[in-house]
Amino acid sequence: MASNGSATVGHPITCKAAIVWGPSEPFVIQEVQVDPPCRMEVRLKVLYTSICHTDLSAWKGENELQRAYPRILGHEAAGVVESVGEGVEDLKAGDHVVPIFTGECGNCPCCQSDKTNLCQEFRVNPFKSTMVGDGKTRFSAVGPGASGGDRVPVYHFLNTSTFSEYTVLDSACVVKINPEAPLERMCLLSCCISTGVGAAWNTANVKKGSTVAVFGLGAVGLAVAEGSRLRGASKIIGVDINSEKFIKGEEMGITDFINPKECGRPVNEVIKEMTNGGVDYSFECAGNLDVLREAFISTHDGWGLTVVLGIHPTPRMLPLHPMELFHGRRITGCIFGDFKGKSQLPEIVEKCMKGEIKINFDGFITHELPFEEINQAFKLLEEGKSLRCLLYL
Amino acid sequence: MASNGSATVGHPITCKAAIVWGPSEPFVIQEVQVDPPCRMEVRLKVLYTSICHTDLSAWKGENELQRAYPRILGHEAAGVVESVGEGVEDLKAGDHVVPIFTGECGNCPCCQSDKTNLCQEFRVNPFKSTMVGDGKTRFSAVGPGASGGDRVPVYHFLNTSTFSEYTVLDSACVVKINPEAPLERMCLLSCCISTGVGAAWNTANVKKGSTVAVFGLGAVGLAVAEGSRLRGASKIIGVDINSEKFIKGEEMGITDFINPKECGRPVNEVIKEMTNGGVDYSFECAGNLDVLREAFISTHDGWGLTVVLGIHPTPRMLPLHPMELFHGRRITGCIFGDFKGKSQLPEIVEKCMKGEIKINFDGFITHELPFEEINQAFKLLEEGKSLRCLLYL
Ligand SMILES: [Zn+2]
Ligand SMILES: [Zn+2]
Ligand SMILES: [Zn+2]
Ligand SMILES: [Zn+2]
Repeated sequence: MASNGSATVGHPITCKAAIVWGPSEPFVIQEVQVDPPCRMEVRLKVLYTSICHTDLSAWKGENELQRAYPRILGHEAAGVVESVGEGVEDLKAGDHVVPIFTGECGNCPCCQSDKTNLCQEFRVNPFKSTMVGDGKTRFSAVGPGASGGDRVPVYHFLNTSTFSEYTVLDSACVVKINPEAPLERMCLLSCCISTGVGAAWNTANVKKGSTVAVFGLGAVGLAVAEGSRLRGASKIIGVDINSEKFIKGEEMGITDFINPKECGRPVNEVIKEMTNGGVDYSFECAGNLDVLREAFISTHDGWGLTVVLGIHPTPRMLPLHPMELFHGRRITGCIFGDFKGKSQLPEIVEKCMKGEIKINFDGFITHELPFEEINQAFKLLEEGKSLRCLLYL
Repeated sequence: MASNGSATVGHPITCKAAIVWGPSEPFVIQEVQVDPPCRMEVRLKVLYTSICHTDLSAWKGENELQRAYPRILGHEAAGVVESVGEGVEDLKAGDHVVPIFTGECGNCPCCQSDKTNLCQEFRVNPFKSTMVGDGKTRFSAVGPGASGGDRVPVYHFLNTSTFSEYTVLDSACVVKINPEAPLERMCLLSCCISTGVGAAWNTANVKKGSTVAVFGLGAVGLAVAEGSRLRGASKIIGVDINSEKFIKGEEMGITDFINPKECGRPVNEVIKEMTNGGVDYSFECAGNLDVLREAFISTHDGWGLTVVLGIHPTPRMLPLHPMELFHGRRITGCIFGDFKGKSQLPEIVEKCMKGEIKINFDGFITHELPFEEINQAFKLLEEGKSLRCLLYL
């Protein structure tokens, strides 16, 4: 790591990053040059980062149109502001922060509306790989086989790029939190906990005593269960084809389990029987359209709501017939748990610290490794062995 | 007409009905025997009835699985109770009523929920052609070519079958209204006005100053516009491939028109330009999936809501990609304007009478004909010449 404190302000920083040079190629831990933040940008020292399935998918380059290499992936993190660019007034060096992939500019019609968290400028965009300000990158590095030391631009990812000791973000994507909050846990607010808990609290608005089905028991699915548990759902049904996930699920408050491979009939029939006609809310966290359909018809007609959280990189359209909309079941997408990150997360942090909200952060972190072992951390996630592996830098 | 008053109670009534004996065959105005109402049923003297596209579609037998002949169609009407069956306590002979095709039993989990108007027992069901109580019909008639006078059962339609001087309905499908309300207008509360106005008020909850697009300017589309106007929408854009409908539309409060055949580019582009990014609400009243998609993407991302009112008798699935749900646009179906008919319509009638709600009933009735001219009335609707033709019996 190159430098600390004010000596670095206005200068490039040379530090370590995990760079992916091509689809599914191992991360190379190497030197990267991180330029100073431009207008309305922030340079952040990343202290903790963890890995999400969205990183896994981007690492593999599953969607050809979204490929951009070399690239610094990573979007779940926590750290400290190193310096801020011109015009940034709500953040300063030393602030404890979490990056958010769905930013909040505060000024656009969407930010000014209380109906959406999708900022027009800084909403999540998997096709974006450079900074908004000038369409350029703030990272550059020397390729593994390059002679002569010529640096090439290294692309950004999801507004965040946290697999680096330092990263540059738009200030719209940086949330200041109470400096006494434990950054090694707040890291999860960057993605999985906000997404899952928010889906239950904001998108579905799960009511006390209601019934919930969660399809796909990865970290986001478990965070949905956690949000539903905190709201007092009477039944939280977990659905996954890997029964090993039920052990962790039970620990996290899931009350009933269904393994579609073992139940011998359509999951929606089992759920309808368990819930007198269907659950009040279902959450699709599997990224599979057949699962999405099953989640949809597992809800009670008349009022059931399905929240889609899974990513669906498929040319297939929604497998729902238009007339099925007339049975009173609804379906909606959800990005970042419908939280407006900068406006709402600081208060969530405060409430967690005061014990008013008891989110089980610890339950999600199944592994911890030094940043240098990021390839091992990806392997753990890919093999379904970890929920979240915390990397410390 | 056979009889009046209490002399008929408990006996079959022989009266005139318009019976359809096969797909697209002209209605035969002929004698029908109408049995007395069984337990929880009501026999109604129909005074006014009008024709809706759902009748037109059923008359043609467009959906093979929904065919049932001979049949008495019709679901938009108003009349007076002739007698009630055992167990009916909320209605009595002489009550002024409107039938509803989406009934309200009051007791099922859906009726007890404030989230839906889809009664589990009496919700609209296009496949149903007999009474719930015993699976039989209350109508019988002699076929046009039959010798010997043998009567055959005549099927029911949409819980109502109003193309008859007398009809039998489940009491869950009969709404008692103020006897001073004009039945020749209240008739429209049976379907088009409740459906369209309710879609704007209940389903979308259109806000003052918001923007609306209505795709398809038949009676339901105009009722959506009427509901939006009454809520104070700032812009109500009407979309139809028949520019002749714009004359009536303007009279009914539509502020802007788009004819997709004449605008030279996708309608959603025109709408986005007119509304700074898209309307707040769009309503699909055309029964066409390409129109549905256009309606969906014509709304503002982040918060746009599309309400589907059109009937889609097609094997095609929804032409929406799952990832499009993540742009914050929502879509929902709507049956009978999300009104709980028995609970809510009487108060709507009261408010209309007191002038607190100024629904332009008159604007919808473009023609009036005697019941015997029902074939002419169907022709007017089929050719797009009428909005609603009121038939008086
Ligand atoms: Zn993530
Ligand atoms: Zn914004
Ligand atoms: Zn109708
Ligand atoms: Zn009911």
